[in-house]
Amino acid sequence: MSAMTPLRALAYAQIHRPRFLEELQQFIRFPSVSAQPKHARDLKRCAEWLASHLRRIGLARGEVISTRGHPIVYAEWKGRTEAPTILIYGHYDVQPPEPLKEWHSPPFAPEVRGEDLYGRSACDDKGQMFAHVKALEAHLATTRELPVNVKCIFEGEEEVGSGNLIPFIERNRRTLAVDAAVLSDAPMMGPGRPAITYAMRGGFSAELEVHGPEHDLHSGLYGGAVLNPLQALCEMISRLHDARGRVTIPRFYERVRNWSGEERQRMAESGPSASRILHNARTAKDWGEPGFTPYERITLRPALTLNGITGGYQGVGSKGVIPGSALAKLNFRLAPDQDPHKVDHEFRSYIKRITPAEVRSEVRTSAHARPVVLNPRHPMIRAAAVAGRRGFGRSPVFLRSGGTVPVVNTFQQILGVPTVLMGFALPDDNMHAPNEKFHLPNFFHAIATCVWFLQAAGAAGRNEKAAAMAGGVG
Amino acid sequence: MSAMTPLRALAYAQIHRPRFLEELQQFIRFPSVSAQPKHARDLKRCAEWLASHLRRIGLARGEVISTRGHPIVYAEWKGRTEAPTILIYGHYDVQPPEPLKEWHSPPFAPEVRGEDLYGRSACDDKGQMFAHVKALEAHLATTRELPVNVKCIFEGEEEVGSGNLIPFIERNRRTLAVDAAVLSDAPMMGPGRPAITYAMRGGFSAELEVHGPEHDLHSGLYGGAVLNPLQALCEMISRLHDARGRVTIPRFYERVRNWSGEERQRMAESGPSASRILHNARTAKDWGEPGFTPYERITLRPALTLNGITGGYQGVGSKGVIPGSALAKLNFRLAPDQDPHKVDHEFRSYIKRITPAEVRSEVRTSAHARPVVLNPRHPMIRAAAVAGRRGFGRSPVFLRSGGTVPVVNTFQQILGVPTVLMGFALPDDNMHAPNEKFHLPNFFHAIATCVWFLQAAGAAGRNEKAAAMAGGVG
Repeated sequence: MSAMTPLRALAYAQIHRPRFLEELQQFIRFPSVSAQPKHARDLKRCAEWLASHLRRIGLARGEVISTRGHPIVYAEWKGRTEAPTILIYGHYDVQPPEPLKEWHSPPFAPEVRGEDLYGRSACDDKGQMFAHVKALEAHLATTRELPVNVKCIFEGEEEVGSGNLIPFIERNRRTLAVDAAVLSDAPMMGPGRPAITYAMRGGFSAELEVHGPEHDLHSGLYGGAVLNPLQALCEMISRLHDARGRVTIPRFYERVRNWSGEERQRMAESGPSASRILHNARTAKDWGEPGFTPYERITLRPALTLNGITGGYQGVGSKGVIPGSALAKLNFRLAPDQDPHKVDHEFRSYIKRITPAEVRSEVRTSAHARPVVLNPRHPMIRAAAVAGRRGFGRSPVFLRSGGTVPVVNTFQQILGVPTVLMGFALPDDNMHAPNEKFHLPNFFHAIATCVWFLQAAGAAGRNEKAAAMAGGVG
Repeated sequence: MSAMTPLRALAYAQIHRPRFLEELQQFIRFPSVSAQPKHARDLKRCAEWLASHLRRIGLARGEVISTRGHPIVYAEWKGRTEAPTILIYGHYDVQPPEPLKEWHSPPFAPEVRGEDLYGRSACDDKGQMFAHVKALEAHLATTRELPVNVKCIFEGEEEVGSGNLIPFIERNRRTLAVDAAVLSDAPMMGPGRPAITYAMRGGFSAELEVHGPEHDLHSGLYGGAVLNPLQALCEMISRLHDARGRVTIPRFYERVRNWSGEERQRMAESGPSASRILHNARTAKDWGEPGFTPYERITLRPALTLNGITGGYQGVGSKGVIPGSALAKLNFRLAPDQDPHKVDHEFRSYIKRITPAEVRSEVRTSAHARPVVLNPRHPMIRAAAVAGRRGFGRSPVFLRSGGTVPVVNTFQQILGVPTVLMGFALPDDNMHAPNEKFHLPNFFHAIATCVWFLQAAGAAGRNEKAAAMAGGVG
């Protein structure tokens, strides 16, 4: 076993921590907000920076591939024909930083305070994906090779649904043949408690727009005689959940899988408690579908969330106006075995039905992703468990996540391989929220974990081959 | 009668039309948005411009009076001890111009297109009040005197509830002793159809804020287990009206006056038809409280209007977030004999009752104003009817308005005088909305009407004095 220990890589990673941190800060400074067209150039610059970085650490190709949206960064290393090939996935695009006034330091001016690095994408996903990049560097810099072959795909559209990555993978399924994918855009259980995610919710995004009068009206002169589209929107939204918090769209729960008591018991034992989830959410009171724990509600059960409303006057003070239209942004999170396209269809029919006759409604949807469940006994996932134990000094917990990484589905369906979801995000890392941060001890443990994972994945490949050969002889 | 005809003033007003229009455009260029603190200096500059303009046309004092908010502009002329005194009221503050992208020309760069002058406040109220200013100038420039004494009060806080004007009038009730007030911040019936408003709704503004998690959460990681304050806000708003469009706040309608069939019949004959109101509102379908016509709904009946919602992500694209809080802006319009403070109290109790236990709500209210009903047979209102007939060549219609001018109440209750509401705004002048405009033929007819009004008010004063003297003798 000692020959297998990546001692020099681990030592290298330890020594170069200050530089790694500085590089991560450079990476975070790009305001690569994929949802906002004004940042298109920033995404391009960020992709170029990343590709050049990958070339510099010794990967082949290291190129920026244009798409109809934001570019994909690709790099590879294939120096070990006998070893398995791992696809390392990450995303360099980030969530919008708004509301800006709630940030204690500017979102794109990363700042270390205490043991945390603050900045948009410090954790989701630049920080987490950079741990993989630095692990590759540690191996290559110390041994001039890697324990496995790798293909790196870092995309710029994860936060907007991976709309161009999925066709890219379809088109390149042959050249992208791999044995497994790995990605780190997932939670840990708590400080010092690594986790491997084995299930994620699917989902899609929706915009619901309600149109009334041709333009805004004076609320004194017309209030009481015209149906206000913003009020109509609120009334329609209020009809999306019943009083107990269940979604009222017809047939919404029809295909939701019922899990065995055994699985639910296992989840209750290993997963976060109700009080832990409420604490992490900085929320005092329990809410949601009756008959399920909070952990089950955010993983086994689907949810429909209202992400934002835009309508009428939003400035300081008051303005007596009936807005001409109003818009809601909604987000579905779907549980196995819901089909996002089928739910989309039912949602549209229901909206049509509950739109008052005096107004007109319009629905736009995007980024449909199926829910995912992985087999925790797959050799590569077991390799990740070994790596987590080495990197953090404690065995990882197997978790379900309520989040969605659409590409996991694509890896499963198009490449036919499982994804290893090694999470390095703390529940209080404020992913998608103001004051996003990355806990620096986790960054460094993550690098060590990724160094170990490459090693263990190589060993798992050898063992599999040995087993196959033994089988062939026997 | 011919000696009484203000021929020279009318001729002067006719000759100087191009300059008057140019001056109105100067006036509109000040972005005097009272609701937005960033414009405080613009309001001050606008007030100074106006005061200097009033001095220049020959009024006394012409001064800017500071308040705790935006300043009041005051000017007077008292050269006729035997004549009545008229308080001319207007407001130089304007509604916020948002949404800016819907304007065809910038709101504070007035532009003449066809027969209309476009710009924020072209009509509400700079254009309408400026007609009075130009009528004063026409008399003073041609006869060096006015037919009546005048006190001008032009405030900078009408669009935010006149919070500092009302105490100013209370403090100065003695020096502000007048026989009537006049203002033009009211609608016409249609092109070429002048109107005098004899009733206005009262009202107040409210902000309803709902607080949930301490800050925004990832909607994947928490969706389904945390009550979303934006969703809670929508659900609360949906409980403010029943399915028929009636407000559901307890005792809301308790004090609303029931009008006689005779009054409703008169309104049906003289007021706008249902199809006219819907046409003006650019709305296809009828909506509102059953048993009332649209004209009755916007005048005899109260309304609760949702003016805006701010909550969650409002940028381009999608963002998977559960917002930490959400805010709605609401506007009550109250009918005789509702008491705004009593309704405020009931609203707060109701909101408290319908706030879900998982979130916290907060209500802020401002700008309470009582509904107003005036006596159309008052001599000064009759003088306005005469003036309207001379200025437009057609007898004014007596209208109720759904709007609110809080100071009308103050004139009634503190100064003990009625307000003459001469409206020069067309239903399609887009008051409070993008592309506000003033129909220029109405601007010029309005100036003539105001010239005539000053004349007729002087005559009405003389007739009243004669009647009083005759009464004293008899």
